[in-house]
Amino acid sequence: MPAKTCRMPDSATTEDALLGGRIRLRQPAQGYRAAIDPVLLAAAVPVRPGERVIEAGCGVGAAALCLLARVGQASVLGVEIQPSLAALARENAVLNGVADRFSALEGDIAGLGLEPAAHVMMNPPFLPAGRGTPPPDASKAAAHLEGEADLALWVGFAARHLAHRGSLTVIHRADRLGDLLAALARHRLGSPVVLPLWPGKGKPAKRVLVQTRKGGRAPLILLAGLTLHAPEAGFTAEADAILRDAAPLPLA
Amino acid sequence: MPAKTCRMPDSATTEDALLGGRIRLRQPAQGYRAAIDPVLLAAAVPVRPGERVIEAGCGVGAAALCLLARVGQASVLGVEIQPSLAALARENAVLNGVADRFSALEGDIAGLGLEPAAHVMMNPPFLPAGRGTPPPDASKAAAHLEGEADLALWVGFAARHLAHRGSLTVIHRADRLGDLLAALARHRLGSPVVLPLWPGKGKPAKRVLVQTRKGGRAPLILLAGLTLHAPEAGFTAEADAILRDAAPLPLA
Repeated sequence: MPAKTCRMPDSATTEDALLGGRIRLRQPAQGYRAAIDPVLLAAAVPVRPGERVIEAGCGVGAAALCLLARVGQASVLGVEIQPSLAALARENAVLNGVADRFSALEGDIAGLGLEPAAHVMMNPPFLPAGRGTPPPDASKAAAHLEGEADLALWVGFAARHLAHRGSLTVIHRADRLGDLLAALARHRLGSPVVLPLWPGKGKPAKRVLVQTRKGGRAPLILLAGLTLHAPEAGFTAEADAILRDAAPLPLA
Repeated sequence: MPAKTCRMPDSATTEDALLGGRIRLRQPAQGYRAAIDPVLLAAAVPVRPGERVIEAGCGVGAAALCLLARVGQASVLGVEIQPSLAALARENAVLNGVADRFSALEGDIAGLGLEPAAHVMMNPPFLPAGRGTPPPDASKAAAHLEGEADLALWVGFAARHLAHRGSLTVIHRADRLGDLLAALARHRLGSPVVLPLWPGKGKPAKRVLVQTRKGGRAPLILLAGLTLHAPEAGFTAEADAILRDAAPLPLA
């Protein structure tokens, strides 16, 4: 995962396969590259046929395409601040035959006001502003550093764009769990469910999936989580089902 | 665990064994009764010989006695608001031969200013004020309901009473993890380490152990945690080592 990478003729772009070949994904050869995070994110969104999903920071559309491959008739509106990634997202929508269900809007989440949706999903930039060394590549840096659009801004975007009882699903670094829960509480997104992603048995989590409900009032649930890697290398059967066979990863 | 319970002659008190019989614990027959939470809490405190520990809400002294059974020469000052429990804590200190290392101060954490210690530990009341049905017994209610002394107050007490680089270790309901992390951040207790306590494999956590450092600036760590119960009933070997053999439960 990704199963194979083909360098495209322009050499600045590769084509990769996701979900066991169900999805073809063109993405920049350099900079942030979709791996398993968007696949896990998409698997966790409780979307039903006919529902609309907004993705904040959709990049080249990896999570959106995975979600649409799993749930027929759903649709995704992605927002992406980088024009080159938004363009690749539109290209990927056509390539995967879902251009009628996935559109990528070029824009900044800070200023947007869209029609609310039943679900929002996001894989926000990873590091708090000013912490860590930004990768030398500008596109990678934008995906890894929060800059001015900090976590609270991303969560605020979700809160504004969710219908009542709508769900927000976030994948993020495990070490930002406290900040993420605080931002969710501040924006009154309730009933948080936390699913740790364990790199291997007995190892600390590197990522967490967190799902909340607008208007939710239930107490936090800390699920047992998903172990990604088996002791002898390779993915566990549970992870493989999600990553190759498009199985859902329910948090409810 | 507890291995056995003996009704005392006054019939309002029982005597129980903790840590495989290493500790004798007199406690009220009715109301909140020490089970495994204080044993796990005590196992997680990174105390070294010669260091001083403050316990907020020490009850009859279960955690303090467990900690002192594991680490020689350490000492614990417990604070307990209920006079009858503080009296039992002092009785238990004598019963276990550690009256020179464990004292129980009757008082309200809200108003106290003590000499700071290297470590603070606590098993705070469980429910936020006004939520849930208070148990009919008044003593049990005081242990389960936060009332006015809410979580932030408990964490504030710890922040005031920790030496620089001192550790706070808390055991709490898993569904309060967000509130707990927020309270710790508000009081600038950093470098949080979260250890989920799983009732059984694949089940959501009911309790979490959280440890922080005064002056710590490291990102949060979400540890794999400890599974308490084996599929065929009974404790797992890892849990048994802590609960019966006084093994430590390190969060670092």
